[in-house]
Amino acid sequence: MRLGIDIGGTKTEAVAIDDAGGLAQRIRLATGFGSVAVLETAVAAVSRIGELTGLAAAGFDSIGIGIPGMVDRASGDVSHAVNLGLERLALGGELADRLGVDVSVENDVKAAALGAYHLMGLAGTMAYLNLGTGLAAGIVVDGRLWRGSTGIAGEIGHIPVDPSGAICACGQRGCLETVASGSGVARQWRTDDPLPVRALFAAAADGDKDARAITARLAEGIASAVRVLVLTVDVETLVIGGGLSHLGDRLLCDVHEVLDEWAGASPFLASLSLTERVRLVPEGSLAAAVGAALVGEN
Amino acid sequence: MRLGIDIGGTKTEAVAIDDAGGLAQRIRLATGFGSVAVLETAVAAVSRIGELTGLAAAGFDSIGIGIPGMVDRASGDVSHAVNLGLERLALGGELADRLGVDVSVENDVKAAALGAYHLMGLAGTMAYLNLGTGLAAGIVVDGRLWRGSTGIAGEIGHIPVDPSGAICACGQRGCLETVASGSGVARQWRTDDPLPVRALFAAAADGDKDARAITARLAEGIASAVRVLVLTVDVETLVIGGGLSHLGDRLLCDVHEVLDEWAGASPFLASLSLTERVRLVPEGSLAAAVGAALVGEN
Repeated sequence: MRLGIDIGGTKTEAVAIDDAGGLAQRIRLATGFGSVAVLETAVAAVSRIGELTGLAAAGFDSIGIGIPGMVDRASGDVSHAVNLGLERLALGGELADRLGVDVSVENDVKAAALGAYHLMGLAGTMAYLNLGTGLAAGIVVDGRLWRGSTGIAGEIGHIPVDPSGAICACGQRGCLETVASGSGVARQWRTDDPLPVRALFAAAADGDKDARAITARLAEGIASAVRVLVLTVDVETLVIGGGLSHLGDRLLCDVHEVLDEWAGASPFLASLSLTERVRLVPEGSLAAAVGAALVGEN
Repeated sequence: MRLGIDIGGTKTEAVAIDDAGGLAQRIRLATGFGSVAVLETAVAAVSRIGELTGLAAAGFDSIGIGIPGMVDRASGDVSHAVNLGLERLALGGELADRLGVDVSVENDVKAAALGAYHLMGLAGTMAYLNLGTGLAAGIVVDGRLWRGSTGIAGEIGHIPVDPSGAICACGQRGCLETVASGSGVARQWRTDDPLPVRALFAAAADGDKDARAITARLAEGIASAVRVLVLTVDVETLVIGGGLSHLGDRLLCDVHEVLDEWAGASPFLASLSLTERVRLVPEGSLAAAVGAALVGEN
């Protein structure tokens, strides 16, 4: 049995994965804010899954955690997890001390990539396109995470595609993230709605021209991210996940339309069958928690 | 002993690589035009290297060919090698019939990537950025070519980076290839000089404003290609090769300047150490022929 924990900005999901790869248990907790509270949340998740499975920490084949921010795989240190109130936390080391077993720590997008690959029964090469506050991809090759030489592989949100685009938080201009992410949408569409992206799509459906322009740029940005990943890594499957993926088929259809339009204008792009490569992560799939349970072997 | 042949638009280079990986023999032939002549050129290269080494075709551990165009690795078929007058040629099959041994066929940029990796003593992950008539990259991971799921990995020349850029031959607008390639330069700088890119750089050095703008766009396009390859694959080393690499340090310094300028404006980019990753392929290194000798094991 493997244990995986996905520590998100507001909630933490934890799962137990049995030896056949199936979901044996799942729980959800509120995530605490700041180093001490995040650590307590992780310990509580191990404890709760332990009760449900009847296993002590040492009884799991592996324990893994997916968490936002920069992760040092070797040490298990996490830094710059702004939404969690973490500047720097020796999460892996602290947890190992508390639990008496090794704990693997991985960036949450990479964990979700591995989880989606497993849950969707994929083979070969895939990229998981995480459309959250930011935009980043996790790349999986033959069932293993592709991290690159310095761990930066898949950080496509900061590839500029428009010299006259908006200034990005990274200091560049016209990055993919400025149009194809939650923060990109929020910058363009000011609203008090608690679900701003849904409000945007509703306005677009009602014919609001500004809203339509923003959803069009969103779809084009996602399609551009797909094109970049195919023309570099040549991934067979692109899975759209993250907060914006809850828009479901509305979003997927918009992206497919852009890719089909491009294919109509470029025989070269048509030959790449981009549309056929893009899928949505299944709703409610717990990809990051499942992936976290698997990172121990990755 | 391995035999490698690089069939180029005007000349064909062939090498014999000894068991220690060293260059044992090399020859150069004029490349014939059209299917029959290209096939004869390859047979002549095997024959000449055979005379120099005293080995019959069956005496080599492997024979490999690098050639422009689309290559079907399994069949050894080559298509769309326009500069060679080939619409389609069963190069691998025809050569196997003529020589009585298996022959590996690979795209010349991919072969050059493998050859440069070997010749430069690299480790980990590298991309070979081929700046020829077009722009494409060959990617090598731990000594093996990364071809991707459909063989399109590294075709970064057709990633658009400017919505108001020039129309590309592929049907898209603002592709990297429209500024960072020989054809991109030729479109912008009309000249009768037999070495148009050298003429362009000479004019830029003399203060010609148009020439300076074109060389600046060239350096920015190459820097953009570097950024794309690091933010997707996270290659440790980027090797600039192909016809434009003969410009040498003039080109490399321009690219380094752009990358340094970007790093000054973006702490995120600065953290990637892009400048330190970029190198030139050694002049006269026969990378494609050497790589062709090695593709048999790849």
